[in-house]
Amino acid sequence: MEFDPDSFSARDWERPTDADPIRFAMVGLGWWTREQAIPAVEDADYCTMTVLVSSSTEKAADLAADLEGIEETLTYEEYADGAATDAYDAVYVCTPNGLHRDNVEAAATHDKAVLCEKPLEATVEDARATVDTCQEADVPLMVAYRVQTEPAARRARELIRDGAIGDVVSILGHMSDTILDSVDETSWRFDPDLSGGTTINDIGIYPLNTIRFVLEEDPQAVYARTESEQSAYEGTDEHAAFQLEFPDGKLASCTVTHSAAVTSSLRFVGTEGELSIEGLFFPNTRKVLRVSGPDIESEYRPEPVDQMREEFDYFANRLQHGLDVEPDGEHGMVDMRVVRALYDSAEQERRVELDR
Amino acid sequence: MEFDPDSFSARDWERPTDADPIRFAMVGLGWWTREQAIPAVEDADYCTMTVLVSSSTEKAADLAADLEGIEETLTYEEYADGAATDAYDAVYVCTPNGLHRDNVEAAATHDKAVLCEKPLEATVEDARATVDTCQEADVPLMVAYRVQTEPAARRARELIRDGAIGDVVSILGHMSDTILDSVDETSWRFDPDLSGGTTINDIGIYPLNTIRFVLEEDPQAVYARTESEQSAYEGTDEHAAFQLEFPDGKLASCTVTHSAAVTSSLRFVGTEGELSIEGLFFPNTRKVLRVSGPDIESEYRPEPVDQMREEFDYFANRLQHGLDVEPDGEHGMVDMRVVRALYDSAEQERRVELDR
Repeated sequence: MEFDPDSFSARDWERPTDADPIRFAMVGLGWWTREQAIPAVEDADYCTMTVLVSSSTEKAADLAADLEGIEETLTYEEYADGAATDAYDAVYVCTPNGLHRDNVEAAATHDKAVLCEKPLEATVEDARATVDTCQEADVPLMVAYRVQTEPAARRARELIRDGAIGDVVSILGHMSDTILDSVDETSWRFDPDLSGGTTINDIGIYPLNTIRFVLEEDPQAVYARTESEQSAYEGTDEHAAFQLEFPDGKLASCTVTHSAAVTSSLRFVGTEGELSIEGLFFPNTRKVLRVSGPDIESEYRPEPVDQMREEFDYFANRLQHGLDVEPDGEHGMVDMRVVRALYDSAEQERRVELDR
Repeated sequence: MEFDPDSFSARDWERPTDADPIRFAMVGLGWWTREQAIPAVEDADYCTMTVLVSSSTEKAADLAADLEGIEETLTYEEYADGAATDAYDAVYVCTPNGLHRDNVEAAATHDKAVLCEKPLEATVEDARATVDTCQEADVPLMVAYRVQTEPAARRARELIRDGAIGDVVSILGHMSDTILDSVDETSWRFDPDLSGGTTINDIGIYPLNTIRFVLEEDPQAVYARTESEQSAYEGTDEHAAFQLEFPDGKLASCTVTHSAAVTSSLRFVGTEGELSIEGLFFPNTRKVLRVSGPDIESEYRPEPVDQMREEFDYFANRLQHGLDVEPDGEHGMVDMRVVRALYDSAEQERRVELDR
């Protein structure tokens, strides 16, 4: 099997362009936007930031003072009303999940392309409406899963697609973090109306979406168990374990928790070998990809890339060429339905089939 | 944290002795006995083989001719009737699961210690009777899980017990092999009365039992999904994924299959780190133990030990000193009940609680 380890940091999607960079309005200035998204755009090749949208005029102004090229700072109301639409081409929406719909639909009204954080919305219904609005307005909508433009994930998909481990039979995934240490109990993350769910919804979506991405298939039925030990998580899912049934008998088993060491792993076992990736689900950590099969037996430790920068540049480069963006809204809808089925399963203590 | 990597091949259970070696009757001469158990005893420090028991007089005689020290070859009937009981001190029972009870109870009748292959029997009821008989006869009964005397598993338990990764939150386990390639469709493994189940029963028991061993806790509830793709497995479980709920919200997710590359992995994620072991569930393969925590960050690749030899020597050395053997029959009963609950769960498509 021919395989180029250098490809682990390569952008297989990149197309040269003389087009102007895509100008982003950053909608929502919470810690993820400030610490991950803004540095990524500052470092990006194909996009810039020109507008900041926040409920706090002061926060936006302070941030704008530290950044180059910010032309306008807007409140959500001003943004929704169409202020400064000449100053930006696309929006990055990173608000509490339950506010995504309003902010994406505003962008669609203004004919702006949308990069929306995952999950699409807090409920399947609001997510559906959000996607429909973008489709009717004919504006590109991409869900910011982040991992799908991570080179290690793309190389894993290629290796599996090329038969490096035979047919996939079993999949194991894990993600954990310590978010309780950085947010207080009043966070929107503990408000089901704004979040749509806690751990499965927030980080279970990483193994779920990445397994879908690598297999290029969707779950047909699921099961989940949730547990809450700490009082801040009462009535929500602090820890979870869940299973996903994919076509042809492939079974995935995953664990996720907001209360353990920051770590992630993903493993595909096939008829002829296995492929695993450590650290895949975190934005800037070192990844270790191990693959063992009849024609390949290797361990790769590629230089980490900034996943958020890759995602912004991919999205912008596609827009510059007028090409479709992936993962799109319909792709995101599948995760919305699967996550709802996982919570239904945990509630009912039984297997839940997905509607076809 | 003090930790001695050399301990990965050490026998923490070993006690010096001048006692005579324990003389085994090997009951059942299938491929596992011939290829794994007999070479292990030949290489052992504290035991020997003196008797072979088989349904085939010819097979036993041929094998005896190749081995040193075999004093008698017996049919199952002769063994049950008490032939040559002066020639052996203990029995190793490695027959189809559904024949364990008869052969263990015969040993108990003859006042012989028993090392019985896993699982204890094909049904919970027969396993219960087997354990009761040994208890009434006051003969030692150990279940041959093999991994509990593997040094890497014992060091993993110590590390976790000593707090190397904080409190365990999530556990992931996998085991797969290609047994279909080495047995035909008429094998007892596909006969539920003789096997008690296919993949979960045969190899799901490795992650199940090893997680119990490391955590020193038992599952409280379970869920399983089974799949059969190939015709030989019709109506049985070729592939499975299952979840185990341990005390304090610990959740384990496992996958097992008889139709994938030979591989195994086990991972414990804790509040302060993680510990993983590759290759743990196979008898002679290289193990890789990685542990990451506040006071330790290492990868160990200890020299492989022969797990079967370690198990035989442990069992024999304990008997020489008149000490209890572990894992005992009651320990094995828990796996019997959990495996039945897993199959019930797969059948009913719902979570099943274990009786307390």
